[in-house]
Amino acid sequence: MLPLNPAIDATFRPPVMEARRWLEGVSFPPERPLINVSQAAPVEPPPESLRRAMADALLSRPDAHLYGPVLGRPELREAVAANWSRDYGGTIRPAQVAITQGCNQAFCATMQTLAGPGDEVILPLPWYFNHKMWLDMQGIRAVGLHCGQGMIPDVAEAAKLITDRTRAIVLVSPNNPSGAEYPAQTLRAFFDLARVRGIALIVDETYRDFDSRAGAPHDLFVDPDWGDTLIHLYSFSKAYRLTGHRVGALIAAETRMIQIEKFLDTVAICTSQIGQIGAAWGMANLTDWLAGERAEILTRRRAMEQGMAGLEGWRIKGCGAYFAWAEHPHDIPSDQLAKRLVAEAGVLLLPGTMFMPAGDPEGARHVRIAFANADAAGIGALVERLQTFRT
Amino acid sequence: MLPLNPAIDATFRPPVMEARRWLEGVSFPPERPLINVSQAAPVEPPPESLRRAMADALLSRPDAHLYGPVLGRPELREAVAANWSRDYGGTIRPAQVAITQGCNQAFCATMQTLAGPGDEVILPLPWYFNHKMWLDMQGIRAVGLHCGQGMIPDVAEAAKLITDRTRAIVLVSPNNPSGAEYPAQTLRAFFDLARVRGIALIVDETYRDFDSRAGAPHDLFVDPDWGDTLIHLYSFSKAYRLTGHRVGALIAAETRMIQIEKFLDTVAICTSQIGQIGAAWGMANLTDWLAGERAEILTRRRAMEQGMAGLEGWRIKGCGAYFAWAEHPHDIPSDQLAKRLVAEAGVLLLPGTMFMPAGDPEGARHVRIAFANADAAGIGALVERLQTFRT
Repeated sequence: MLPLNPAIDATFRPPVMEARRWLEGVSFPPERPLINVSQAAPVEPPPESLRRAMADALLSRPDAHLYGPVLGRPELREAVAANWSRDYGGTIRPAQVAITQGCNQAFCATMQTLAGPGDEVILPLPWYFNHKMWLDMQGIRAVGLHCGQGMIPDVAEAAKLITDRTRAIVLVSPNNPSGAEYPAQTLRAFFDLARVRGIALIVDETYRDFDSRAGAPHDLFVDPDWGDTLIHLYSFSKAYRLTGHRVGALIAAETRMIQIEKFLDTVAICTSQIGQIGAAWGMANLTDWLAGERAEILTRRRAMEQGMAGLEGWRIKGCGAYFAWAEHPHDIPSDQLAKRLVAEAGVLLLPGTMFMPAGDPEGARHVRIAFANADAAGIGALVERLQTFRT
Repeated sequence: MLPLNPAIDATFRPPVMEARRWLEGVSFPPERPLINVSQAAPVEPPPESLRRAMADALLSRPDAHLYGPVLGRPELREAVAANWSRDYGGTIRPAQVAITQGCNQAFCATMQTLAGPGDEVILPLPWYFNHKMWLDMQGIRAVGLHCGQGMIPDVAEAAKLITDRTRAIVLVSPNNPSGAEYPAQTLRAFFDLARVRGIALIVDETYRDFDSRAGAPHDLFVDPDWGDTLIHLYSFSKAYRLTGHRVGALIAAETRMIQIEKFLDTVAICTSQIGQIGAAWGMANLTDWLAGERAEILTRRRAMEQGMAGLEGWRIKGCGAYFAWAEHPHDIPSDQLAKRLVAEAGVLLLPGTMFMPAGDPEGARHVRIAFANADAAGIGALVERLQTFRT
């Protein structure tokens, strides 16, 4: 038999794929189709103008099909540097930007440069399951930090968890799975803590384009020495509906890019050229369209908050960007609840157990609802189905 | 300052990117343009029919832009299973096929499931540098196996290197960088050794479409229990000129796919959908075209062998697929030679030092020439430039 690395055997199977398997053999009547709020993913393709720009590039640009630089196409790195410098009021140079095969890969690359087996990384709870899975595979201990009011992590609580093996704190804002938008002063406080303790602060802003607040979500890039502490992660997938093309970004100090490049060269060689071409085209041409997308998501968020407020026994703990994190009133754990909701309510959502350490009672009491996949009518139907469901 | 994982710091920077930096500030006169034989990559885009099929998919198929299954699109997994079963005379099921973001990622995924820090993996020398880099980053010891006549590894020598920490032997055939096509009986002998010793045999057949031999290159898939020992890797990049789309494949036992899926979900989520659509279209429609590509590569190989045979002091040690591995006659190590060849001969090739452990004298005496990037006239010019170069 083939050898088996115990570190990968110890981690769990991909939650989204597991949830998809719950659908096997279940039929949904036409008058009550499945409401799928399991994955944070656009369900429509990019706008026609972007699709056409990408198709034209495939036909006319040989370089759309060939290897590109490991760290990404220069024009996309330059566009990210320019736009981020503007948006965050700081200075980010193209050499401080790497393009990755999606934001998950940006996280893996970052962690590979920071930590090895036996090291520790602090993740607020509930965590994003792929972060936990990567740390498990690498033999890095994920240290959970329970969040308080509004699903905001507390910096003093985080400070207590730091040991001489801690290498980083990872914050996701707006958060997956809780939807919480972390206040700028929270991010600043974590940055100061990380700097003083000589560890990295990773800020994953995959959902930043759907933040309900105006202006920069934090001032960390204003510090000219941000690179000694901060690594920022981003995804083009949500903004431009490019999930199937796998394009993300990582912003870090230029010295760190030497290490990042080693990882990306080995695991990726380069990011899909056509995905990068699409992302650059979107940044240059879809600003107004993206503003409309954001407005629609914020409309759905309000529908979600209002609908859930009237839902007996349920409590929304966090809501923002694509997600709501909700406490359910049922006397069964969330993983059992989620499976029963498929067949009995025609709803696919993810149980809180997928976002918490095994055995943590918070996991059993909560679910994640990726409401952004449903329009206002769909959210209404979702709320109604949850209302009538009985254990 | 940010923490630094010593395992990634210890490995070297991407050789192909390093070689590209040698070109900075060097100008090449129009009458003597650069001959770039550094990277194994098509320099032309895919044929127009394939480009059009991919462009059409971007315009008309929403799923070309959206997340797909972690292990790949079903039609591509089915096509690989059917074609490989036919080509190798064995039984490979779709559930035993995973699609990856390039063949490098297939290797990383495979190793993640097999080995962890402190484990050992045997690689014939010269090795493929990205294999060595991944093992370094993961804290896995790469154990080099010197090759003998014809750059073929010897199974008895390999057996002596196996310890209780050995998890796998990795064979690349046709080989990168040596070009050697391993005989079927060599692959069989390694398979038998691996099975008896309870370790994995990884066979990377990225260049299989340019093998000079007719028929199946080995009979390992004929064994109904191949999955207890064998993991096979492949790339669509070379056959269909899809390097910039990042599509590879991994064939392993279905039980192994549970672990592979964890890695791919975390580092990739999925492979580019349009790349997968292109690969499937190529497999279905470009059989004759690919046969022509193979014939052209074999013509270039003959030109390379003939040209180098007349080149004083040089000795070809291996030649096949995209590569020649050659001993040079100069009294400087290959890394110095390679840098001087850029400015003084207008030739970019990779030094043997990039494919060997630091300090191994074989590295200093050899170079890798990715001749497939040059046509017969270009190979003639290459030989002439190497002939006239003087240290």
